[in-house]
Amino acid sequence: MTHQWTIGFDADDTLWQNEQFFRLSQTRFAEMLDDYVESDHLMERLIAAERRNLGHYGFGIKGFTLSTIETAIEVTRGRVPTKVIAELIEMGREMLRHPIELLPAARESLEHLSGRAEIVLITKGDLLDQERKLAQSGLGDYFDAIEIVSDKTPEVYQRIFARHDTARSMMVGNSLKSDVVPALAIGAWGVHVPHELTWEYEHAEEPTTHPRYRSIPSLSELPALIEDI
Amino acid sequence: MTHQWTIGFDADDTLWQNEQFFRLSQTRFAEMLDDYVESDHLMERLIAAERRNLGHYGFGIKGFTLSTIETAIEVTRGRVPTKVIAELIEMGREMLRHPIELLPAARESLEHLSGRAEIVLITKGDLLDQERKLAQSGLGDYFDAIEIVSDKTPEVYQRIFARHDTARSMMVGNSLKSDVVPALAIGAWGVHVPHELTWEYEHAEEPTTHPRYRSIPSLSELPALIEDI
Repeated sequence: MTHQWTIGFDADDTLWQNEQFFRLSQTRFAEMLDDYVESDHLMERLIAAERRNLGHYGFGIKGFTLSTIETAIEVTRGRVPTKVIAELIEMGREMLRHPIELLPAARESLEHLSGRAEIVLITKGDLLDQERKLAQSGLGDYFDAIEIVSDKTPEVYQRIFARHDTARSMMVGNSLKSDVVPALAIGAWGVHVPHELTWEYEHAEEPTTHPRYRSIPSLSELPALIEDI
Repeated sequence: MTHQWTIGFDADDTLWQNEQFFRLSQTRFAEMLDDYVESDHLMERLIAAERRNLGHYGFGIKGFTLSTIETAIEVTRGRVPTKVIAELIEMGREMLRHPIELLPAARESLEHLSGRAEIVLITKGDLLDQERKLAQSGLGDYFDAIEIVSDKTPEVYQRIFARHDTARSMMVGNSLKSDVVPALAIGAWGVHVPHELTWEYEHAEEPTTHPRYRSIPSLSELPALIEDI
């Protein structure tokens, strides 16, 4: 392993827990509305609203909160009490305050690679929220650069890895769709570290036979994987 | 003027109109609620909600929308119809779609300085929204770097101007509080280009006697000002 490697790390559900807070919020959302609508149907409508609004809101908790309010009004045909809407706003703010819970081997893996490779945090979501989480994680000093982006497209990876040799660049994350597939598309390596909870938006077919694709069960295996390449 | 200069440009209400869309939305907000509350009192409550929520939401339209909903529920003690809340959500989305209207001499000034100085866009707000506006403005090619930041503090300017000589760095914008004062604080120049509409949050005392402070009525005067320094 030499200093030539540039390693991009996803943040949410790669370095720290995230989706579990969305799932808890969805459960609370369903409970708040269980007098009006069945949970399955509600989730379908919420997912549809999130997808429809993605082009306006982008990723993150503020957009999620607005989509829950919109869905609550929609599915109840306007009969949802404003008290519930106020609770949804408060739920969003609680999500924006949730404490950081590091995933196994996140710190150890960064510590090992730090100084041996160029390390970049590449994450999407609300700017302030991602900054807060990074600050709280205590991992900030391991990164040579922080990239909070509105979406993870091949163009975005191209720009970030452009200063480097893309064949010696690697993106590591839990999302096949956002972390692995677009990195492979520009000639970089894509390393999947699956998380038991992954937002359905982030699913993509696993590029099992791609020569620059790897999957590891835990970040603890990342240093050895890089040594092996 | 040499290539040594680094010039940071604010975006909203410096290069293109922004506050006018917020004002229009505030007027619509007051109209929607005029059966329940007087306009003056409503605006006070909205501003209070925005300030209170800034630490959670940061700057931008999504946070503004959430604060209008919260305020509508608050001031009506929950009696606001959900139809109005749905309209507030739609109003927020309309703001996220509003067309870009360049301010006088924005393009000419950038065109003149481009290639003669390092030009950086430094703006706060929602990530995706700021990217959209930049793309629509057609000004993207004039910038050597784009910095969408969660807040404009001395530390942020320090980081952005760190690669350069801060004494030959300059921030140009309509907000004394966000563009001028923190730039002066780190040893850079601060150039105020007042806009007739400035969000009350952005007010600060004019540092009239500061040796690195300048005020110009229009961006058209910027190239000459830099020549003169």
